[in-house]
Amino acid sequence: MRRTLFNEDHEAFRAMIRSFVEAEVAPVYGEWEDAGHPPRDFYRKLGELGVLGVQVPEEYGGGGETSFKYQAVVSEECARAGVSFGGYGVHVNLVLPYLLKYGSQEQRKRWLPPFASGEMMTAIAMTEPGTGSDLAGMKTTARLDGDHYVLNGAKTFITGGVLADRVLVVARTSPAGPENRRAGLSILVVDTKSEGYAVGRKLEKIGLRSSDTAELSFTDVRVPVEDLLGEEGRGFEYLTHNLAEERLGIATSSYASAAAAVEFARKYVQERTVFGKTVSSFQNTKFVLAECATEVEAARSLVDRCIEALDAGELTPADAAVCKLFCTEVQGRVVDKCLQLHGGYGYMLEYPIARLYADARVTRIYGGTSEVLKTIIAKDLQV
Amino acid sequence: MRRTLFNEDHEAFRAMIRSFVEAEVAPVYGEWEDAGHPPRDFYRKLGELGVLGVQVPEEYGGGGETSFKYQAVVSEECARAGVSFGGYGVHVNLVLPYLLKYGSQEQRKRWLPPFASGEMMTAIAMTEPGTGSDLAGMKTTARLDGDHYVLNGAKTFITGGVLADRVLVVARTSPAGPENRRAGLSILVVDTKSEGYAVGRKLEKIGLRSSDTAELSFTDVRVPVEDLLGEEGRGFEYLTHNLAEERLGIATSSYASAAAAVEFARKYVQERTVFGKTVSSFQNTKFVLAECATEVEAARSLVDRCIEALDAGELTPADAAVCKLFCTEVQGRVVDKCLQLHGGYGYMLEYPIARLYADARVTRIYGGTSEVLKTIIAKDLQV
Amino acid sequence: MRRTLFNEDHEAFRAMIRSFVEAEVAPVYGEWEDAGHPPRDFYRKLGELGVLGVQVPEEYGGGGETSFKYQAVVSEECARAGVSFGGYGVHVNLVLPYLLKYGSQEQRKRWLPPFASGEMMTAIAMTEPGTGSDLAGMKTTARLDGDHYVLNGAKTFITGGVLADRVLVVARTSPAGPENRRAGLSILVVDTKSEGYAVGRKLEKIGLRSSDTAELSFTDVRVPVEDLLGEEGRGFEYLTHNLAEERLGIATSSYASAAAAVEFARKYVQERTVFGKTVSSFQNTKFVLAECATEVEAARSLVDRCIEALDAGELTPADAAVCKLFCTEVQGRVVDKCLQLHGGYGYMLEYPIARLYADARVTRIYGGTSEVLKTIIAKDLQV
Amino acid sequence: MRRTLFNEDHEAFRAMIRSFVEAEVAPVYGEWEDAGHPPRDFYRKLGELGVLGVQVPEEYGGGGETSFKYQAVVSEECARAGVSFGGYGVHVNLVLPYLLKYGSQEQRKRWLPPFASGEMMTAIAMTEPGTGSDLAGMKTTARLDGDHYVLNGAKTFITGGVLADRVLVVARTSPAGPENRRAGLSILVVDTKSEGYAVGRKLEKIGLRSSDTAELSFTDVRVPVEDLLGEEGRGFEYLTHNLAEERLGIATSSYASAAAAVEFARKYVQERTVFGKTVSSFQNTKFVLAECATEVEAARSLVDRCIEALDAGELTPADAAVCKLFCTEVQGRVVDKCLQLHGGYGYMLEYPIARLYADARVTRIYGGTSEVLKTIIAKDLQV
Repeated sequence: MRRTLFNEDHEAFRAMIRSFVEAEVAPVYGEWEDAGHPPRDFYRKLGELGVLGVQVPEEYGGGGETSFKYQAVVSEECARAGVSFGGYGVHVNLVLPYLLKYGSQEQRKRWLPPFASGEMMTAIAMTEPGTGSDLAGMKTTARLDGDHYVLNGAKTFITGGVLADRVLVVARTSPAGPENRRAGLSILVVDTKSEGYAVGRKLEKIGLRSSDTAELSFTDVRVPVEDLLGEEGRGFEYLTHNLAEERLGIATSSYASAAAAVEFARKYVQERTVFGKTVSSFQNTKFVLAECATEVEAARSLVDRCIEALDAGELTPADAAVCKLFCTEVQGRVVDKCLQLHGGYGYMLEYPIARLYADARVTRIYGGTSEVLKTIIAKDLQV
Repeated sequence: MRRTLFNEDHEAFRAMIRSFVEAEVAPVYGEWEDAGHPPRDFYRKLGELGVLGVQVPEEYGGGGETSFKYQAVVSEECARAGVSFGGYGVHVNLVLPYLLKYGSQEQRKRWLPPFASGEMMTAIAMTEPGTGSDLAGMKTTARLDGDHYVLNGAKTFITGGVLADRVLVVARTSPAGPENRRAGLSILVVDTKSEGYAVGRKLEKIGLRSSDTAELSFTDVRVPVEDLLGEEGRGFEYLTHNLAEERLGIATSSYASAAAAVEFARKYVQERTVFGKTVSSFQNTKFVLAECATEVEAARSLVDRCIEALDAGELTPADAAVCKLFCTEVQGRVVDKCLQLHGGYGYMLEYPIARLYADARVTRIYGGTSEVLKTIIAKDLQV
Repeated sequence: MRRTLFNEDHEAFRAMIRSFVEAEVAPVYGEWEDAGHPPRDFYRKLGELGVLGVQVPEEYGGGGETSFKYQAVVSEECARAGVSFGGYGVHVNLVLPYLLKYGSQEQRKRWLPPFASGEMMTAIAMTEPGTGSDLAGMKTTARLDGDHYVLNGAKTFITGGVLADRVLVVARTSPAGPENRRAGLSILVVDTKSEGYAVGRKLEKIGLRSSDTAELSFTDVRVPVEDLLGEEGRGFEYLTHNLAEERLGIATSSYASAAAAVEFARKYVQERTVFGKTVSSFQNTKFVLAECATEVEAARSLVDRCIEALDAGELTPADAAVCKLFCTEVQGRVVDKCLQLHGGYGYMLEYPIARLYADARVTRIYGGTSEVLKTIIAKDLQV
Repeated sequence: MRRTLFNEDHEAFRAMIRSFVEAEVAPVYGEWEDAGHPPRDFYRKLGELGVLGVQVPEEYGGGGETSFKYQAVVSEECARAGVSFGGYGVHVNLVLPYLLKYGSQEQRKRWLPPFASGEMMTAIAMTEPGTGSDLAGMKTTARLDGDHYVLNGAKTFITGGVLADRVLVVARTSPAGPENRRAGLSILVVDTKSEGYAVGRKLEKIGLRSSDTAELSFTDVRVPVEDLLGEEGRGFEYLTHNLAEERLGIATSSYASAAAAVEFARKYVQERTVFGKTVSSFQNTKFVLAECATEVEAARSLVDRCIEALDAGELTPADAAVCKLFCTEVQGRVVDKCLQLHGGYGYMLEYPIARLYADARVTRIYGGTSEVLKTIIAKDLQV
């Protein structure tokens, strides 16, 4: 189905990403997976190409684009090649909006140029052992002591946590109010080389083997007050402002993963023979691929509509929840079916479909579980 | 999610349809169901309102619109009110494109004015007992005899077949070619008052109780050659040309039915109490409605995209197959879940959700079964 | 898969039922559907055959069997022939256990002989407009006045309510306790010829067209105290005692319906040709039937195990809930898929698969909705 | 639901396995996963405990049991503890039946004692790169040369292939017949220390990290004729004889895995709090667990019935196909849902649910893909 989402600029960007992935990522991707993350200088390359800074204003060395569509292109091209850019998504999709929206002029000057060049990689630390989606329950504290905050606590499931230079840490700067559990949270942009800052275990996951997911701990880490993002005590509010974009980012890469799975399966069944016939010649194969392609097409329509809405400033939290819920469910079903079409090879990690499968399972959980999303959608339906 | 599909004209049309349905259809709909079809003069009213002729050129007394969007509005409003316009869909969505595209100037002059006014209701007769989706296997014959064709055979599952004044009958005017089973079919626009033309049983169906579905039989029916539509022998080709639009029509009303089901359920659970609480206060209710609304939103995005493509002359057969397959599957799941939220009342035909359920089961079958659609989609995927 | 459930006696009973259905039910079943219930004398015939009284003790003119397996045989044979015995299930599966367990010696002598012979058909009236599964919320009252109760209120969804001679009506004989909403309910075995007893509308349903489902209303109906079943105020407790058997009854007929659907589809696809091949020769057909047969086999294993447990006095409420939930879900999926294999004919009520489909939708609702069952099962899991 | 499958002997065996797993496996299981297989001496311990030889006749040092139920106990206990015994299943479930049925008296004397003691671990090599489920298409050859076969070729996906001492290799000893592709295959019991025998890469899989899955290659491996199992040329026939038992083995461990997943989730949601409540207090949690427990109960009923049938010598290939298809589908759905209830922790391999998830994906593929099974079942249905 003809898409109307992308113009020539986006397609030129796509061509550039595609050839970069083919030349610089695909050949060494196995090494990234063994290491658990891309090499540090990979992000410098992404920076040089302008990929990290697409949405950074030109005055800070970025591309000055305001459209989400470039991120969508990167998602589609990564999925198509069966690779992932590690912490790229967190850096660009999650962290950048905070810096743009809540960073002071001074902070933006200080952080955005290295952000765009890849010299300063970022991550964001919300979840704590024992809190999950319940952000208001967090226990990490930042006590003001002169012109520093003194940070203590622990975080977990931090994507990009091993390589990050700066981590946006959400901490409690004052106790929760008696009537508002969400009050008293602030965001500190913590330098990961600070004393008392420690990266714990790299967590072993079902998939996402090229993404470093870590536990972090903070023991009397002193954070200068000039590294407070926005105003003290408004952290929870800030966190909710960017959720729609964050969720659309996950939705987009989930849909792209499903679309890629269909392509991998399509090629596999055309080439592979069994009982003297190509796998593609069986009616079941045709029907399964048709079902998958149909779900992907629906997901694409929804994603495209939401991207246009986001660019127009009209994407609501409920819309984003719908989009993430739908696309991640489609991804789950489609990748599973496409793996099945690969037979035993589908279970071997050397096949991209196996990696897509192992990676897919987390998307219904992170960035808001399907259960959290349903709650949001139901509220919007007024039930 | 904000839609961009409709402009002010469409919304004005919607308002007109909505008040017409409320005033003229809803109060008497039970009678239509008992009778098995709307009263004959209902179509005159639709004609007077300009609903039947929206897409008929102005020179023939119609609205001169070329957009499919008016049909979409009617589908949505009927679903919303839990009613159906009987053979309207066949008349406007299936038959009109044939008359417009293949009718001669003389035929259009003769047929389109009464078509638009509702004086000449139409249907189309393809399926035969024993053929199903395999059109090339049909056995009805039309033998040329002077300036008439002599028509013999039988058709089944003819929606609108009881009330129609003219029926487009697909018949074999010459034997199938040795290499082309599809050759030799022609379309005759048969006057239902002709001698030898008989309407058989009205078929008892699971639902669609306000639509007359009939068997037809032809015994030496003499059809003037001037009632041949297009060229002799090209019937199969003609039939395939309009499939995309026909399927989009079914997809649209299927999506609209699912959307209406969510609304019916939403209202029901807000009002109904059980164990001392409203049904809507249970988490399961919230989650089920959120899942349904999510699927409806995806279906709507796909439908909207396909309607734009159809209006732009770009909707491919595979796109339409994807759209119909997806929307009818969504309809099946969503209407089933929304019925369940009604408890025992959902099984009682006085509740619109029960009628939606009974009606829904046919959409995965007619206009191309899901299996036929998957075959088309797979071919398009080159597997 | 070889079953171990039935012995020679059961199989002899099966053969008798099968030939009875073929000779006496199938040929006239359409008339039952048009009438909305079997003719009154049909139940006499069932009585004469010993079908109604299988589980009635011999001293009251019954077969004296204690096993549920005879009911299972009837369910399987009815499903196999695509027919239903109307209120039979309620009579035998729901009502009889109450009479046996809570009836006094006098009551059993009075009621069981006509129960077994079919002269006294029975039904049970629990649900009220506005209460659904929440039995404790019922509003029908029975006030003691001398040696009669005076019954007032209304009931709905009463299967067999049109033909019944006696209806077990659950009514409030004293107000709910402050701490126990369930206290104060009693069961009266009401003579349907009593003054003030009225059968309201026959309710139009999606399916179950041969079962009379009615609304009942009671206006100062005087019920002799000797028609109180068991002790006053213990009605709720009694209702819950038989739930396991009732639910197993629904589970059994649901599984049997799914098994029958597979058989109908199997025969249809073997005979029907499309595109020059039998429908059965398509891989999709084979796979769909294999999936359906697999689910049926699992359901059968579960049903058989539960029947053995019931006969051994070991079937718990949670077990029965599991069995009903599973079998009705299987029925829903399997009947839907088997209908699809019939193409357009599957939507026509003259085909048994269409009736199975229309009938199936209620089984996930009556006798405890799936939601109620999940609550029971979860409680048993201690979550 | 009360099971009738196991007697006191089985339960005593279960207790022994459970305490062995707790003491000897669970504490070191992480090391096995890192190594990719259990240590060599683990199998000696299993041998000493009598676990490997339960079904080996007493005259060869075994337990002399003929029932499959002991294997079922091991499957359940491993799943319950979230561990796997590596190549145990292949050794006992796949290989032993061949040795018992087709081994000569001399071979049984030679092989069964070390088989039972764990000194001779075994595997079986059927699949070749490029053949998958199509065994008749295999290309490995064994040419007779004096009193040896000379074996050449390659095999893949060999579970237990790294540690095995003897591998049953299926090879072509004569060309396929013109009318029978399945003729000419034989089974050689190859000593893995033979010259020319090479273990290729250990294959990286999505899960099953404690099972060594390897590629094998044979270059002029000389295999003494006395290591031919059964008769030359009857290999294909032999392979099909044991399929029912093999598939029941997979079905059993799949069901056990689903049952274990429910237990892990049940405990997790009871302990874990979110938004100030235990996860178990949400209705969605209760419903999801109830759905899972229901499917597990159905699977257990089917498995138990099939085990009784196998022990009675009555399990047909179609029955076994039904059982494997159903149980592996249930496993897929249930483990997925139970993982979701764990939130982000479900994606971390340190949680058993994550390992169950990663392991589960292969069961719908190995030992006959779901597609192969459906073909078998459909054939049995005569469609």
